[in-house]
Parts: sequence; C-alpha cells; structure tokens
Amino acid sequence: MRASNLAVSNSSTALATGVAVRRQCRSGAFDGPTAGLAPGYVQGNLAILPKDWAEEFLRFCQANPKPCPLLGVSEAGSPALPALGADLDIRTDLPRYRTWKNGELAGEPYDLLSVWRDDLVSFVIGCSFSFEEALLESNVPVRHIERGTNVSMYRTNIPTRAAGRFHGPMVVSMRPLSPADAIRAIQITTRLPSVHGAPVHLGFPEKIGIADLGKPDYGDPVPVEAGELPVFWACGVTPQAAIAAARPPFAITHSPGRMLVTDLKNAELALF
Amino acid sequence: MRASNLAVSNSSTALATGVAVRRQCRSGAFDGPTAGLAPGYVQGNLAILPKDWAEEFLRFCQANPKPCPLLGVSEAGSPALPALGADLDIRTDLPRYRTWKNGELAGEPYDLLSVWRDDLVSFVIGCSFSFEEALLESNVPVRHIERGTNVSMYRTNIPTRAAGRFHGPMVVSMRPLSPADAIRAIQITTRLPSVHGAPVHLGFPEKIGIADLGKPDYGDPVPVEAGELPVFWACGVTPQAAIAAARPPFAITHSPGRMLVTDLKNAELALF
Repeated sequence: MRASNLAVSNSSTALATGVAVRRQCRSGAFDGPTAGLAPGYVQGNLAILPKDWAEEFLRFCQANPKPCPLLGVSEAGSPALPALGADLDIRTDLPRYRTWKNGELAGEPYDLLSVWRDDLVSFVIGCSFSFEEALLESNVPVRHIERGTNVSMYRTNIPTRAAGRFHGPMVVSMRPLSPADAIRAIQITTRLPSVHGAPVHLGFPEKIGIADLGKPDYGDPVPVEAGELPVFWACGVTPQAAIAAARPPFAITHSPGRMLVTDLKNAELALF
Repeated sequence: MRASNLAVSNSSTALATGVAVRRQCRSGAFDGPTAGLAPGYVQGNLAILPKDWAEEFLRFCQANPKPCPLLGVSEAGSPALPALGADLDIRTDLPRYRTWKNGELAGEPYDLLSVWRDDLVSFVIGCSFSFEEALLESNVPVRHIERGTNVSMYRTNIPTRAAGRFHGPMVVSMRPLSPADAIRAIQITTRLPSVHGAPVHLGFPEKIGIADLGKPDYGDPVPVEAGELPVFWACGVTPQAAIAAARPPFAITHSPGRMLVTDLKNAELALF
C-alpha cells in the first residue's frame, strides 16, 4: 500500500524543492496533489504521445502558445528532460499518471515503468500555478485558492488553430477580480508567456460562448461579486481535450492536480 | 494678423518634426492644435508657476505620477528645457498659451515674451497623444480619433495625494474598447509610464464616481458600444484642475490642444 500524501507535511523539507518532490514521487512516498508544494518552483502539465503523433502535437502547441506553452519536449523514447531537472525521469517522478487508449481512460498508474515504449515523446506544458503565485506575491487575491477549491474552467467558442489531427475549442480558467486587480493581473501575467501569459478575455463571458459562469465545464464554481470582472486565461486543459478528441491509440497525461515539479524557478520565467 | 493653422498643411515638412513645429510657432506661422503633427514625436502639457509655488507642484507631480508624469522641469527663470529640445524656448515655441491670475483665466497670448519673469519654473507633463499613437500602431482603435472629436474626460472620486496647496480629484480620460483590445491596451500603456501608463480603471464607471458616461466633464461624449468596456486612464487635466483650485497669483498653461512638441520620440519613452 502506498503512502498517503497526508503522511508527508507540505512544509517539510521533503517537499520543498522540485527535486525533493520528484524523489518522493519516485520512491512512492508521495502521490498527492502538488498545489502548494515546492513554493517558487515551476510545475507543469504532462502529455506523452507516440512519435507518429508527436510531430502534429508539437505543431499544435506551436500554433496555440497561450493554452499550450511548451516548457520542454523530450527525445523519442527518452525519459529524461534535462532542461527541466538534471536527474528527471518522466516515468517515475510525478505523483500519479493517467493512460489513455483511443481517447478513453485506460489506467491511473503510479509510475510508467511497465507501459514505457521507446517511441514515446514527453511534452511538459506551463501551468497556472506559476502565475497564481506571482499574483499572490503582488497581493492580487485568487479566490479559488482562498476558498480551497479548484479553479473554474470552461470550454469556449474560441477555436484553437488546428494542426493535423489536433483541434478543438480553447478551454479557459476564470478568476474574478476587481478592475484595479484585473489591470495588475494583466501586467503580471503578460510577463509570463510560458505559463499562459495575459488573459484572453475579460468582462463578457457570453461573448466567448460561456452561458453560465456558475456551471463550469471543469473544476468548481467560483462566485463573481458585484463590482468584479470575470477574467479568463487560456488553460492547459485545452491540449488534454484536443488529445482526447484526436483519440490516439495510446497517450499518457498526469493525473489531475498531480503535476510535474521541475527545477525551474517561477521567477526565471518572467520576460522582464 | 496671424496665419491660420489651416495655411500650413500637416503633411508638409514644415510640421514633420518637433523642432519644425516649434520654429513655426516661434515665427508666428502656426498657432493651431498640435494633434497629428510631427508623428512619432512626444507632445507635452505645459504648466508654469512662480518659484514659490513650484516646489509644492513638483512634489504634487512626484506623488501623483499617473496623472502628472513629468517629462521636464526648468531652472527658475530659464526658458530653456534642453532635455526636451536643444534650442527650445518655452516662451515662444507653443502655438498658444493661457495665463491665469488667482485661478481665473487672464489671457490667451501667442507668446510669453511680455509676461515672462525670472522666477517662473516650467513643467512639461506627458500627454495621451503618445500612447494613442502606440495603440493605433498596434491596431487598437481609438474611437474619438476615428470620430474626429476630443476624448471624454471625467472628474472622479479617486483622490490625488495632496502636496502643499495642490490637491483635488483625479481626472481621467475614457476610451471604449473590446475586451481583447482592452487587454492589449493595458500591455501597451504599461510600457509608457511617462505618458500616464496603464489604465486606472475599467468596466464600472460608477465605482470611480462617474454617474453618466454620456456627460463628460471635459471633452466630447464618445459612445460605448455593447460588448465594449470603458477603459479609464489618468489624465493631464488633473494637474491643471489642481492649479486652478490652488489659485496661485500667476500661472501659465498651454491653450487646450496646443501642446509643446518636443524632440523626444514616442518610441524612446517605452520601458521595454
């Protein structure tokens, strides 16, 4: 039986850095959500595809940098991503994975050692945790964090640019902000294009195909108070949805909320 | 009789640079509005105060950089501002001036040669023309320019920081923008703090004390269409209103719309 994530204190030095979290995942000592772990370190979404699907997916990410900002791409068959962590082994260093066959969930393993193939290419995509940390550091409140829930996410009528078999609507996350905080948040996230960058919309959810803010397609509802604007950022669920729709014979992603924690620092990502 | 501004084509080389416009003003050949002249060159608001009021006004500008971004301050009694133009003579190089006594309009001369005093300090304050040019270059439409009217300006409930005898509400200008253009405009104007910088508000005029967008306190009404956000920037009318309220025994400003055209290029002002 695996250790619960509750067995390891978030504040312990065991989970204080990217490499520390990866070692705990690798040993089986940690398999929980990574939000709040290794403060200051960049966390990323994971997508793994066979080589004969990888080139199209790479073009999809290149064409849609706001929802799919690439932090790293591996060599085919290699579990290493040295730019993201010197000793990183993508097969063991996340808390938990999901495997997919023809677009359907096939398993939720704790490591990929038994399913690894020498044609697999790993993609690590920036995640909103990095910009949320930057918002909080500037005293811009993030309500879903205050409430201890997941962010609200919605499928929109904004199309992605198709590339080969990958296509579909942009998924966005929403954070309610006062006008002054919205302006500040636009400034802060503009500096961080590798973790979704500036918002794609604010103010009029119906204009981007969202009928009811209270009914997100993913995550939890988050209330928008009077005098606040709903602010929408491109979301890393977009590439996951594009993969599900493309139905490749085999694919791997991280398990929701259980991200890759890298050796990059959030502060390193800022353009200026 | 002075030459009308209509006698000089805006596209002529006579008005293509800051120094050319100033020479035409100095000679009396031009006394019209400066909007659209010398494309690419920084234009500025002018305020001139006696030395015994100037220190407080300088502190007021320092404390309120968004409405009062200082581009230059002269030595007392000197008509030169070499940082803004090598040969600049503030007494002759604007199209027209206004003189004020105890806060009341006292005259609207074409030059200051007969009223100049050796205790006068000149302040040149950044102007929205610079950021509007940057918006248009990025294909962000500016409706009042499209309509050929003045921008809408409003007194708000946002207080300035008082300094000595100078105080009063912030005056803002409003431009209606689509959400995507509002985000882009925030990015562009963030780069330009010396010409008012990022907006101070968007979306909820009533929150900043504006009861009716259709009734601006200065300038012309500009319609906000469905699906657009009213976006508000700090405005250079703020220091003019603070001077009028403080009622110094003598002051000079530019005549509305007839700005100082400098040798600085708008592109030089950008932070990044």
